Amino acid sequence: MADVARAAGVSSATVSYVLSGKRAVAPETRTAVEAAIAELGFVVNTAARSLRTGRSSLVALIVPDIANPFFAQLTATLQEELRGLGLHVVVCDTRARREEERALLAEAVQQRFAGVVITPFRLLPKDLGVLTDAGIPAVVSADVPFGAVDQVAPDARAATRQALELVTAARRRRIAMIAGPRDATGGDPRLELLRALARQYGTALPGDLVVRGEHTREAGAEGFAELMDRRYRPDAVFCANDVIAVGALDKAHELGIDIPGEVALVGHDDAAFASLVRPRLTTIRYPAEEVGRAAARLLRERLDGRTAHRTVRVKAEFVARASV
Amino acid sequence: MADVARAAGVSSATVSYVLSGKRAVAPETRTAVEAAIAELGFVVNTAARSLRTGRSSLVALIVPDIANPFFAQLTATLQEELRGLGLHVVVCDTRARREEERALLAEAVQQRFAGVVITPFRLLPKDLGVLTDAGIPAVVSADVPFGAVDQVAPDARAATRQALELVTAARRRRIAMIAGPRDATGGDPRLELLRALARQYGTALPGDLVVRGEHTREAGAEGFAELMDRRYRPDAVFCANDVIAVGALDKAHELGIDIPGEVALVGHDDAAFASLVRPRLTTIRYPAEEVGRAAARLLRERLDGRTAHRTVRVKAEFVARASV
Repeated sequence: MADVARAAGVSSATVSYVLSGKRAVAPETRTAVEAAIAELGFVVNTAARSLRTGRSSLVALIVPDIANPFFAQLTATLQEELRGLGLHVVVCDTRARREEERALLAEAVQQRFAGVVITPFRLLPKDLGVLTDAGIPAVVSADVPFGAVDQVAPDARAATRQALELVTAARRRRIAMIAGPRDATGGDPRLELLRALARQYGTALPGDLVVRGEHTREAGAEGFAELMDRRYRPDAVFCANDVIAVGALDKAHELGIDIPGEVALVGHDDAAFASLVRPRLTTIRYPAEEVGRAAARLLRERLDGRTAHRTVRVKAEFVARASV
Repeated sequence: MADVARAAGVSSATVSYVLSGKRAVAPETRTAVEAAIAELGFVVNTAARSLRTGRSSLVALIVPDIANPFFAQLTATLQEELRGLGLHVVVCDTRARREEERALLAEAVQQRFAGVVITPFRLLPKDLGVLTDAGIPAVVSADVPFGAVDQVAPDARAATRQALELVTAARRRRIAMIAGPRDATGGDPRLELLRALARQYGTALPGDLVVRGEHTREAGAEGFAELMDRRYRPDAVFCANDVIAVGALDKAHELGIDIPGEVALVGHDDAAFASLVRPRLTTIRYPAEEVGRAAARLLRERLDGRTAHRTVRVKAEFVARASV
């Protein structure tokens, strides 16, 4: 540091401010220091630098619902993958609220986190600007494109098709969905996909067979009850995730409706409890481990200096159990 | 700040350093600044001060297993309770490893967290010294006394007694336990309690009816298989938590052992999935909401300036479902 200070004609403290970003430094001073660093042949390892300097060794994993086991698995994998870099994962639960999502991004900046992995729920792509401005690497895990950012996204087309094949092979035609809320970012891409594919199987999801709610067990129960009140009851119900599906199962038990006898039920994610409930849940598995590994890889590459944005697609898989 | 600086005869920057603790300041300078602050009649609100100054608004919740829904519920409650103070909760998963527990405490200090709530697994009471030294308020949630620190602890005596009453009323006498690992902090207090009470019901937990493992579903399955291999098979199995109990259920299904017909099964915690499995799990409910509220209250009081240590006891409750 003393060498750099001498070469740049500034104090060691100033060099430290430039490296750590802890204090404002005049642009020309910053340039002089950076030139001196380059001149003296220091290798700039972004990951190591962010660790050595003001940056913390914490990576924030921001999720809408920590109680959803999908995110517990994602956390575990991300930890495992980042441990070798000396990074620790802290999980932040936004409870699907945009104000919390934004507040936590602001915290990540304030605390100079080493990186952020986020599954946005109501956040808008522009909200990520605070991270970009602060030079904090971000990875988004979302079904819809999220702008100029590293992203992990599912490819659930084949799996959804398989689910529809099984459902329609059993001559079920009144297909319904308990979808996410209308104001979630990107609407509900799982609904859009199901709707697009359903047509190919000679059925459709009319408006009155789509109900919406939060990604909670309670919303699943309410949504299922609502659907069972329809004049033409659906004979197959897809759910935006497994938490919703478990709520639907609760309600089916309560109403004495046989699953899958009267109504087939399909979840999404294959969260830990999908195999615990009875009947065991047929679902579209979105492998949290692979999502976690992809997110860790994107983050690592970014810390190592990659600047172009990348999107990694993770294939979902149909898991036939006993609810269809 | 300018007023304080003038009164103390120092620069505004120095006042800022004293308040934020970001830089070392000579003791006499610190005293002068603090005297000026007092003289000028500024109210020192510890919580507000720690927020205003170098301290972050993050509270770390450090747990051994984020996939255990008990901790998801604890997180949700803690968030709800601390939101009003402008504090955000980040969850850190140690995977029950002491080195991770210690590393995360060090991070909390480094990042100047506003507080730490920890459920230690292998951590030793002395490891908390780094928090005390840094003046970071800590709340421990643990069954065993954890030294001079704020603590939330269960009172599970009555609930365990009720469980034993039900089990022994059905003439079950060969009571076993799948306990936590031997090297967990404080051993397994749930085992000690069960053992002490079992004697009062004319039974005992001989050494060969106690198996040990991590608090995981896999360990539960292995432990159950081991117990079923004993010459005198147990007819009732208590588990250190519900995650273990679910693993035991998996294995019982696999081995074709009827629960509760052949073996009664008792969990601990009443985690979210306890009511999902079949048969629904009879368990000792340790209410995560109350634990979270108590921890938040202890933290708040500490931020408000309380200096004496407090322990809050939270009553566990017996929940009879279908596995006994």
